[in-house]
Amino acid sequence: MVRKFNFNPGPGVLPFSVLQKVQAEFTDYRGVGMSIVEMSHRSKEFEAILAHVKQNFKDILGIPEGYEIIFVGGGASLQFAMIPMNFLGKDQVADYVNTGEWARRAIKEAKLFGKVHVAGDTESDNYTHLPSELVFSSNAQYLHLTSNNTIFGTQWPSYPETGNVPLIVDMSSDFMSRKVDVKKYAMIYAGAQKNIGPAGVTAVIIRKDMLDKVVNREIPTMMQYKTHVENNSLYNTPPVFSIYMVDLVTEWIKEMGGLQKIEEMNDKKAKMIYDIMDSMPDFYKGTVTQKEHRSKMNITFRLPSEDLEKKFEKEATAKNLFGLKGHRSVGGMRASVYNAFPIEGVEELCKFMKEFAANNRK
Amino acid sequence: MVRKFNFNPGPGVLPFSVLQKVQAEFTDYRGVGMSIVEMSHRSKEFEAILAHVKQNFKDILGIPEGYEIIFVGGGASLQFAMIPMNFLGKDQVADYVNTGEWARRAIKEAKLFGKVHVAGDTESDNYTHLPSELVFSSNAQYLHLTSNNTIFGTQWPSYPETGNVPLIVDMSSDFMSRKVDVKKYAMIYAGAQKNIGPAGVTAVIIRKDMLDKVVNREIPTMMQYKTHVENNSLYNTPPVFSIYMVDLVTEWIKEMGGLQKIEEMNDKKAKMIYDIMDSMPDFYKGTVTQKEHRSKMNITFRLPSEDLEKKFEKEATAKNLFGLKGHRSVGGMRASVYNAFPIEGVEELCKFMKEFAANNRK
Repeated sequence: MVRKFNFNPGPGVLPFSVLQKVQAEFTDYRGVGMSIVEMSHRSKEFEAILAHVKQNFKDILGIPEGYEIIFVGGGASLQFAMIPMNFLGKDQVADYVNTGEWARRAIKEAKLFGKVHVAGDTESDNYTHLPSELVFSSNAQYLHLTSNNTIFGTQWPSYPETGNVPLIVDMSSDFMSRKVDVKKYAMIYAGAQKNIGPAGVTAVIIRKDMLDKVVNREIPTMMQYKTHVENNSLYNTPPVFSIYMVDLVTEWIKEMGGLQKIEEMNDKKAKMIYDIMDSMPDFYKGTVTQKEHRSKMNITFRLPSEDLEKKFEKEATAKNLFGLKGHRSVGGMRASVYNAFPIEGVEELCKFMKEFAANNRK
Repeated sequence: MVRKFNFNPGPGVLPFSVLQKVQAEFTDYRGVGMSIVEMSHRSKEFEAILAHVKQNFKDILGIPEGYEIIFVGGGASLQFAMIPMNFLGKDQVADYVNTGEWARRAIKEAKLFGKVHVAGDTESDNYTHLPSELVFSSNAQYLHLTSNNTIFGTQWPSYPETGNVPLIVDMSSDFMSRKVDVKKYAMIYAGAQKNIGPAGVTAVIIRKDMLDKVVNREIPTMMQYKTHVENNSLYNTPPVFSIYMVDLVTEWIKEMGGLQKIEEMNDKKAKMIYDIMDSMPDFYKGTVTQKEHRSKMNITFRLPSEDLEKKFEKEATAKNLFGLKGHRSVGGMRASVYNAFPIEGVEELCKFMKEFAANNRK
C-alpha cells in the first residue's frame, strides 16, 4: 500500500501503529474469541478499556481530583445543546465568544434555552483573527470558547482569565495537542475525530460542582451530564469501538512522550509550514491576519489566484499530499496537521510548496 | 483462534465474513491509502457508503416512497427523548405500551414533554407476556411499541392496527430479523448493535409527513429529525465507522437471501431451543408465559435451582457457549440468537442442554 499524507480536517489521520494494532486484533480481541465490536459494554474486557482510557486521560492531561471523565455519542454538536440545557436557566446569561462556524452553532443552541451575551465576535472580519478584547457580562453562568477554529485556522494561544465564571471550552480540534492546565476549566469537551480517535464519541471532562447546577427545566435523561457520570458512561450502550480506539490513541500519546513532546512536535510541524509561507508572502498568503492567532492544527493560506489554488491541489494530490483544499467559506488551502500527522509529510509539503512557487511565480 | 459461540444480548455476534472484510481493509480502505476511520465524512468514498447502505435498507425492507432513512448517534435511548420532543406537544397525549425495561424508559422520557397514556402494561407480571388487550386513547399523537424485549424475552408476533394513529416502533433488538411491512409504520428505529452492526449508531426510518409535525417548543438542532433528513445524516460528523459496518452487514443480509431467508433461519434456530425446553418442562422452564409471545431473538429460561443455573453457565462457558447468563431482573439463562448467530452454535447449545439435564436431573 501507499499510505497517503492525509491533511484532512477531520476525521483525519490517526497513528499507523494504532491502526495496525486494531487490524491485528479485530476478529479476535486479545484471544477472547470475538471481535471488540461483538463484545458487551458490560464485559470485563470493556470495563477494563474504559478504566484504562480514563487513566490515560488523567496521566496525559494531569487531571486533578474533583473532575469526572465521560464518553458520549452525538458529537460536539450535541454538546452545544447539552451545555445550555444543563447550565443556563431561561432568564440567565451565558457569555460566548464567536470565533467561527462551531462557535456560531454553539451560540445558536444556547439561545434556545437562555440569554446569550456575545463577549467577543470577529464574524465581520470573516473570523480572520480572534477578538482583541472580550467584554464579559456581569453575571454569566459560564464563558464558552472554541479553542481552535478548524475552518478559519485560528487558535487561542492562551485563554482569558475568567475569575469565578466557569470556563467551558470546545477543544474538539486541538484536544491533547498541547499542554493544558485542567484546573482552569469547568468543562472541556472534544469530538474524538481529530486528535484522539475515530468519529462517533465525544470526551467530556467536567468539574464535579457543575453537576450540582440546577436549572428549572425538564432535561432528557440522556442529555443530563449527571446520568453519564453516575453510570460511568454506561447508562446505555456507548460507542464501544470508538472508545476502544481512543484508548489506543491515548496510549500512543503516552508512548510518544506525552503532551510535552506532542506539543514540541506540533510546534515544529506548524513552524515549518508557516516559515515557508512567511518566506514567500507574495505567493502564499496566510488567511489569519495576526500571527499570534495562527492555529498549530489547521494552517490556512491562499495563493495568488483561484486557478493556481486548483493547480496546487491537483499537483499536491499527485504527490500523495491529500486533503489540502480549504473550506469553501475561506477558500484556498488548508493543511491540517494533527498529532498523528507525520513530520515526513510536512517536509514533503514544504518541498512541494517551494517547487510550486518557483514554477508558478510570474 | 477459537471463535466463541457468542450469546451476548448486544453488542452481540456479527457475521465473521464481515469482520474479516473490515480487518482486511482496515489500514487501507480499498486502496485509497488511508483507513476508513481517517476518512472525511464528506469524502466521495463515504458518500458512496451512505448511499449504498440506504439502498440496502430499501432493498431489504422494501421501503416505499415517502420515507427517509437517517443515521444518528446517541443510541436508541436518545430516541426515547427525541420522539416526544418532536411529536408530542405539552398538552397532547401519546399512547405507550409498557412491555419491559426499554419501553419503561421510553415512557419516562415522554412524560417530560407531554401526556402519556399507557395503553397496555405487563409490569405487574414482571413482563412475562405481552398485554392481552390494548386500550388506546381517543386522540393519541402516536402509539409507541417496543418490538422485542431483550431482557424479558418477549416479542410482538404482529402489531396492533392503529388506524390513523402513527405507529412508532423501537426495533432495536429485532430489526432486520424478520419481514416487516414498512408502510404500516410512521417511524421505525433501531440501535445497530444487535442485528446490523456495532454500537454507536441508530438507524431511523421515518415517514415524511412526520417531519411536518409542529410542537410548540424549542428543540435543539441535533434533536430535530428534520436536521438529519435535510442534511442526509451529515449535519455534523456522523459515526462513520459504525455506518460503514452497517453497510457491510446489510450487504451480508442480502447475500444470505434477504429477510425471507433470514427469518426462516431465525425461526429454525429459535424453534430448536424452544423444542428442547418444551421437551423437558420439568427442567427447563421458559420465563415467557404465553408461547405466542416468545422472542425469536432472546430465549429466556430458568433451571430448577439457582445453583444449577450457575453450574449450567459455568459448564456452557467451558464448552465455548458464551454469554448465556440471564439479566438480573429475570434470572436464569438467556440465549440471544441474532441474525449472525450460527446454527452450529444452536446445535451445540441444544446438545449441551440435553446432556446437562440428563446429568443433573434428580
